[in-house]
Amino acid sequence: MKICIVGGVAGGAGAATKLRRLDEQAEIILFEKGEDISYANCGLPYYIGGEIKQKEALLVTPPALLRKRFRIDVRTSSEVTQIHPQEKVIQIRNHLTGESYTETYDKLVLSPGASPKKFSIEGIDLPGIFTVRNVRNTLEIDEYIQKNQVNSCVVAGGGFIGVEMAENLRLRGMEVTLVEFTNQIMAPLDREMANILHQEIISKGVNLKLGTGVSKLESQSDHSLIVSLTDQSQIHCGMVVLAMGVTPENGLAQQAGLKLSVGNSIQVNEFFQTSNPDIYAVGDAIAVTHGVSGEEALISLAGPANRQGRSVAANVLGQHQTNGKIAYGSSVVKVFDLIAASVGLNEKQLAKSNQNYLKTYVHPFSHATYYPGATQISMKMLFAPDGKILGAQAVGAENVEKQIDVIATVMKFGGTVYDLEELELCYAPPFNSAKSPVNMLGFTAANILKGEMPVFYAEQIPQIDQENSIFVDVSTPPEVLMGTIPNAINIPLDELRERLSELDPNKKIYVTCRVGLRGNIATRILLQHGFDVYNLSGGYKTYRLVNTTFSQENP
Amino acid sequence: MKICIVGGVAGGAGAATKLRRLDEQAEIILFEKGEDISYANCGLPYYIGGEIKQKEALLVTPPALLRKRFRIDVRTSSEVTQIHPQEKVIQIRNHLTGESYTETYDKLVLSPGASPKKFSIEGIDLPGIFTVRNVRNTLEIDEYIQKNQVNSCVVAGGGFIGVEMAENLRLRGMEVTLVEFTNQIMAPLDREMANILHQEIISKGVNLKLGTGVSKLESQSDHSLIVSLTDQSQIHCGMVVLAMGVTPENGLAQQAGLKLSVGNSIQVNEFFQTSNPDIYAVGDAIAVTHGVSGEEALISLAGPANRQGRSVAANVLGQHQTNGKIAYGSSVVKVFDLIAASVGLNEKQLAKSNQNYLKTYVHPFSHATYYPGATQISMKMLFAPDGKILGAQAVGAENVEKQIDVIATVMKFGGTVYDLEELELCYAPPFNSAKSPVNMLGFTAANILKGEMPVFYAEQIPQIDQENSIFVDVSTPPEVLMGTIPNAINIPLDELRERLSELDPNKKIYVTCRVGLRGNIATRILLQHGFDVYNLSGGYKTYRLVNTTFSQENP
Repeated sequence: MKICIVGGVAGGAGAATKLRRLDEQAEIILFEKGEDISYANCGLPYYIGGEIKQKEALLVTPPALLRKRFRIDVRTSSEVTQIHPQEKVIQIRNHLTGESYTETYDKLVLSPGASPKKFSIEGIDLPGIFTVRNVRNTLEIDEYIQKNQVNSCVVAGGGFIGVEMAENLRLRGMEVTLVEFTNQIMAPLDREMANILHQEIISKGVNLKLGTGVSKLESQSDHSLIVSLTDQSQIHCGMVVLAMGVTPENGLAQQAGLKLSVGNSIQVNEFFQTSNPDIYAVGDAIAVTHGVSGEEALISLAGPANRQGRSVAANVLGQHQTNGKIAYGSSVVKVFDLIAASVGLNEKQLAKSNQNYLKTYVHPFSHATYYPGATQISMKMLFAPDGKILGAQAVGAENVEKQIDVIATVMKFGGTVYDLEELELCYAPPFNSAKSPVNMLGFTAANILKGEMPVFYAEQIPQIDQENSIFVDVSTPPEVLMGTIPNAINIPLDELRERLSELDPNKKIYVTCRVGLRGNIATRILLQHGFDVYNLSGGYKTYRLVNTTFSQENP
Repeated sequence: MKICIVGGVAGGAGAATKLRRLDEQAEIILFEKGEDISYANCGLPYYIGGEIKQKEALLVTPPALLRKRFRIDVRTSSEVTQIHPQEKVIQIRNHLTGESYTETYDKLVLSPGASPKKFSIEGIDLPGIFTVRNVRNTLEIDEYIQKNQVNSCVVAGGGFIGVEMAENLRLRGMEVTLVEFTNQIMAPLDREMANILHQEIISKGVNLKLGTGVSKLESQSDHSLIVSLTDQSQIHCGMVVLAMGVTPENGLAQQAGLKLSVGNSIQVNEFFQTSNPDIYAVGDAIAVTHGVSGEEALISLAGPANRQGRSVAANVLGQHQTNGKIAYGSSVVKVFDLIAASVGLNEKQLAKSNQNYLKTYVHPFSHATYYPGATQISMKMLFAPDGKILGAQAVGAENVEKQIDVIATVMKFGGTVYDLEELELCYAPPFNSAKSPVNMLGFTAANILKGEMPVFYAEQIPQIDQENSIFVDVSTPPEVLMGTIPNAINIPLDELRERLSELDPNKKIYVTCRVGLRGNIATRILLQHGFDVYNLSGGYKTYRLVNTTFSQENP
């Protein structure tokens, strides 16, 4: 069997080596249009920041090793320019020699990846304007900074790469402005959760500009750049990094007449076969099946790409591995001293869908509070009326992605919030609490579903009929001095039973505290005394996150 | 309803507060024979070590708060001495006043915990000999050390408390000898995994004595102690901590004629009801249902005790919560700079059962190797021939318990090694690899089950027929110089295809490398060339762990 693979990074290189392990006799040719294969694309920003010091570290598997150890015919700087599906022939251009030639195939695997989106912005091709996709781009940025002694940068786009680049350029000592067109960075999170990250990057000296985009780029005589934004402001800087999302590389697939799917990604079946049964596709260029919605989705992450590479190899050789196409979008990003992780659908996505959903917020500590160093993790979970988990988000300083990994695992089994209640997770004071953050999400969600804890949400407050409502903060007076929800009276929890007569039983009672725990106890007391009572999910801490806005010019 | 609770720590205090949240009217009396309730028992060793500095931090929920906030009638220094189940009456002795009295109950919840095992060792009651159970014990140890300027200690017992005490006393600057009667510390691990911890504690200056126990204790005129061991040696030290395991506090249950279970623990049904339907029991004193074996088991851990407390409250009030009794033994312990975690059954337990099992070892890195600071995690997983996961163990310096949490979650759903292959876990270079350690366990286990990677295990080597076998280390020559398995020839992986003629096809080929990855590739090559070939699971690194012995006297 002769197998040609287009693209030599996560999906392609993984498919190639797994193919060889499964079949010693197959002829395997790997075409990569760039200079490098199997490089550490997720590590590129950290090379810029100096965290990764050797460029060799970015090259995970050199071509020589693939040739020698796996007998894979690796051809770099070799772009597959055309597929002739009828003849099962591909056309290749060697960028080093300029020559073109053809190869036949029995099976073809496409792993072309996704390329940075480019918008038609005036001046976008000027020197000093970069995208970050491969090792060469990264080295070019590094050289440009050194050569031009660049000390300021505009990063356009607040996704994974934009945020990681902003952090790393800042850690390199630059003045950094991060410009994001929507009202939040890190789209996998909902805005109130992203607000924690906004605070963090501002506190680390990054100039954050939300709700505005780059409209024009101009070069000065000293090689510096003027960046004009859609809010009419201008920024003078030494260079610009464009990280405004990626788009599937579907050129070859389109040319070959393969069916496309959501976002012009390549459509594949559960075996990763495209609409042509001898052509397979994996990685950032394909549409996966979203594990929650069941719909086709674009999830451009390294984990799924690697698993797809393994899986497609087995399928090309006639095994039937069908579960690889499902993805949940488990992801994590480091943002200076914080960690943000998420899985599944967020509220923005759910609000647009027909899915009924509920949500809960908790702010538990990262490990036992009596052991030094515990920090709060802010968590949000979305779930269906039957308890099925739809998505979760967590932001904090330690043990953050661990919580999301566990929830992602429950979601793989179609699990519910009741399963989270019962999970038995490793506990010792330095690592966890006896009731883990994931348990707490389960407890609060189950309490909501069972009717044991009616809740309200911070964003509903403006709509609440003030006339017929009483807002009660059950925190202590010193805590309430630090802030509370509008028009709240203060009845500390431990005085509540003695002060029930202060509450009009004909009004709805809206209870809050700092994070929702004491509010829950107060709600239980009031419920059993016949009040119509609701607890603020996540307490005043969530209220603050929901109601934080960041001016476009930070201090 | 009048509910009496015996025992005010994890299970009892948790039950009391959940009862109140569910039922504002119930009369709830909490009896605790000690001085403190709801204290941080898992934190006690860290107070000795100075990591936790304030003794107030050890008192998680003071009695006043339980009284005020939860209207629980908390009675400390109050020992329940007898149950009269027919009359539904208990007898209580107040240790402060000396008086005895009775209380009636509608429902009784026993959460007496477990007490340190005491053996009939001569001199065991001498001054300077301690156990660690509660805050008072801990403060006594601290005072004794300060008053007597103790600078050396013998810790007897290598379980959680013994190991944590040895670490913390050592961090306080003492000469510490850790004595363990079996051939390993941390019984939840198998010995080869515990060997990593043995190395760690020896490297941190603890004198580790395995395979010997305390036979006699003698006091000197200067208050110092002579500890005689069963290996005939003697140790002169300033104090002794006995941590030789715990035993369920079943006195009350026995007196009341309640049925006992494994290890003389209290037998309960899925609602935590004892053999008397009005008496419930939770915590370290009860037998749980082991999630893997389905058998009654003693699992003394804070996580399950806390969940049981919540669950029993609901059941006492007539809800039917039935899943709380199942436990998997998920646990983690910090051992100086290492972390060890495990879940489910270990190989020692499986070898004694009728369960057929297989196993796999991997030594993946804690995060992407190209990002600084990655360290190896040594992992072992046990699984059934149908792929069901039976147990897992991990030892390393970071991201260790995270792996076990994920596996514990899969096990809760009865999941298999194939599920581990498909898990989509959060990945970014500082936190994980694109193929996570858990994925690697799944890949290797699935390869074994599918026959794609026949394996052998390090402990089988002495039994292998040398005459008809060839051992091949496919590492590089410099690596092989660092050590290899007995009688291995060296054929580096990248030369293997050219040197196949050196291997007698009539012999069995046993392949190894450093951790098993290159061995897998070599095995795939040789299998497809018709050889009868086996890969050493976990490679030479596992071989070393299996074959390490620690002399009873360390350097």
